[in-house]
Amino acid sequence: MHARDVLNPATAQARPTPSERFVVAGARWGAAEAGLRKGGGPDLGLIVFDAPSPAAGVFTRNRVRAAPVVLTERRVRAGPVRAVLVNAGCANACTGSAGMRDARRAVATTASALGVPEREVVCASTGVIGQRLAVERIERALPSLVASVRPDGAADFARAILTTDRWPKLARADVSSRGAGGVARVVGVAKGAGMIHPNLATTLAFVVTDARLDARGLRRALRAAVRDSFNAISVDGDTSTNDCVLLVSTGRAGPPRTRGAFEDAVREVLGALARAVVADGEGAEHLVEVIVRGARSARDARRAAHAVATSLLVKTALHGADPNWGRILAALGRSGARFAPDRVQLWLDDVPLVRDSTLVSAEAERAAAAVMRRDAYRLEIRLGSGRGASARMWTCDLGPSYVKINAEYRS
Amino acid sequence: MHARDVLNPATAQARPTPSERFVVAGARWGAAEAGLRKGGGPDLGLIVFDAPSPAAGVFTRNRVRAAPVVLTERRVRAGPVRAVLVNAGCANACTGSAGMRDARRAVATTASALGVPEREVVCASTGVIGQRLAVERIERALPSLVASVRPDGAADFARAILTTDRWPKLARADVSSRGAGGVARVVGVAKGAGMIHPNLATTLAFVVTDARLDARGLRRALRAAVRDSFNAISVDGDTSTNDCVLLVSTGRAGPPRTRGAFEDAVREVLGALARAVVADGEGAEHLVEVIVRGARSARDARRAAHAVATSLLVKTALHGADPNWGRILAALGRSGARFAPDRVQLWLDDVPLVRDSTLVSAEAERAAAAVMRRDAYRLEIRLGSGRGASARMWTCDLGPSYVKINAEYRS
Repeated sequence: MHARDVLNPATAQARPTPSERFVVAGARWGAAEAGLRKGGGPDLGLIVFDAPSPAAGVFTRNRVRAAPVVLTERRVRAGPVRAVLVNAGCANACTGSAGMRDARRAVATTASALGVPEREVVCASTGVIGQRLAVERIERALPSLVASVRPDGAADFARAILTTDRWPKLARADVSSRGAGGVARVVGVAKGAGMIHPNLATTLAFVVTDARLDARGLRRALRAAVRDSFNAISVDGDTSTNDCVLLVSTGRAGPPRTRGAFEDAVREVLGALARAVVADGEGAEHLVEVIVRGARSARDARRAAHAVATSLLVKTALHGADPNWGRILAALGRSGARFAPDRVQLWLDDVPLVRDSTLVSAEAERAAAAVMRRDAYRLEIRLGSGRGASARMWTCDLGPSYVKINAEYRS
Repeated sequence: MHARDVLNPATAQARPTPSERFVVAGARWGAAEAGLRKGGGPDLGLIVFDAPSPAAGVFTRNRVRAAPVVLTERRVRAGPVRAVLVNAGCANACTGSAGMRDARRAVATTASALGVPEREVVCASTGVIGQRLAVERIERALPSLVASVRPDGAADFARAILTTDRWPKLARADVSSRGAGGVARVVGVAKGAGMIHPNLATTLAFVVTDARLDARGLRRALRAAVRDSFNAISVDGDTSTNDCVLLVSTGRAGPPRTRGAFEDAVREVLGALARAVVADGEGAEHLVEVIVRGARSARDARRAAHAVATSLLVKTALHGADPNWGRILAALGRSGARFAPDRVQLWLDDVPLVRDSTLVSAEAERAAAAVMRRDAYRLEIRLGSGRGASARMWTCDLGPSYVKINAEYRS
């Protein structure tokens, strides 16, 4: 891997979107406004590939699945894709068989506008649950959507698919390839789980590469990357009906030099997007990396990391920059992970807070509180087993505005 | 069972504590102030039994267990108890071997003040984690604590063990016995999981009966009752290092007429206390009974009820009296319970909100919102399986004050 390029809030606000940075040979991106979103603004996004392109997908494990999830999973399994239609404003979830007809119709109209086979067009939706999709509005906006696609349109696409995110999320990594230019790109766009309006919440991510891989190679890279990125973040423990991550290869830059480097690049891009999603949680002021070391097995490590990263008591303490180690020990204790309860160490960045399950010193507590005022920091948990299994998750603090807005929200 | 008597906020505020209602033959209760609690007030409670009395206990499953939990579990298993010492203000958790020495010393001093064997005295603590217990303060307060015990002292005891609860929690049920009076009592006292200061949070409950049972009969009744009460409530998903429920029999009213009736009485008392704990959650305005019916197995039913009752998105919607059925379906979908995603029914008290997994009507939505403004109501989920397994949990709404106070709290 040669480079990494993440559009984060700092760069996004400091200078114009460097659209050309997110160009991938063989892919064009566009956006339009269909009027699906309260308050207006772009709410339709489209990615068009120059040729049918192999794809892989990871979809929500929620038993209640939105119509676009069902449709897209089926088509991605069946063969290559030519276009991805995405809308914000309406999740098309809990809409029964009418919802599936709506999704099919939106995709069919898009296919005929592009002159491609219907089975090669897939879709994703995010927005309010339980409302019908206004397909006729999408159809009215389709001509301008199709006209808008261009190679450097990824940033426009990224903005159109947002719901309550505060900033667009794009990331890129490069990898050596055996093609003419010697370099292939992996570019990803995501929208967050928007803690502000969880009814409008869904994690969607679209990753496009010009490295040449078949569907099987893409599936393998995607599964590994999702495990370490979108499956390792916690916002509020709820899983959407619409979650979807797609990886598509245009193949224009030739095969990657090594499969491992390609998988690393996908992991890098999805990891950056996942961290951006957590950092953009409503009311969140801190991005916290939770690392568990010294566990007796990988499963114990994951359980411990998950219990701490999702504990409401821990997350409210993170919001208050309170080194409340008793809450962390209590979360570990109920996690199901095996460990010696009297040998836990806790570190905040380079500050040791707890040793042998008790406070190091009042001074350490003050130093830890100072670390916790940083925008981003690491909470390291050492469980003390010689086996040394580890796990990592990203979480954010939970402030009162999350609860306030979610209590007052009405669809 | 003949009667049930619960001291709830209405009665507690409207008239003087009817202490004689909570008298159990063979038990005396007392309270004193040791100065363990910030802001002052009674913080020590004591129950003394006229004779060594068989007991059963249920203790936290958290791997990190406070010293009093370890000590009390061991002694209750070994034989009968003569006294229970309870303190608020300090949990004596995460205090290592020093914490165990402190607990032993507090109990030993109590035993010698009462003139009973040390092994027959048990203890429970609630309060800040990670601080040493000020045993010398307890020792100074012991003479007045021992002098305070009397048969009608349960309400004083109930107030002394509170942390951030808004009101004391007592409950009573009567049951036919084969003794002279023909009636035995089951009286319980609890303190809540005080959502306001979860570091000070612990569920403690002490149930005393004059029905005569041996330790084995008590264990059996207690286990069944805890499953349907304290293990069926959700405040915020965190489990304390100090949770403890004790059941002690003085035997003075003779054996219960039937074991089933006795078990029902214990279930009734613990159920009333558990609901009182949920209703007293900080910022909580609604007590919500979540009932799942039509599940394929009891396990599926419990999973579904648990996912809905603990979902942050559902609990914030309850706070806003928002019949946000999409969030409930999404929680069911990720619960792991098996069900047909298109056949779910939701009812709020007698209002049908969702049928075949879609909204019944806009009018139903308005009627459901009206139900949700009630202090207490029922959310019934019908999963539509012919097998008809069911489960029940109690939960409360989650308001911004919970997060605000937990973020700002410092131990």
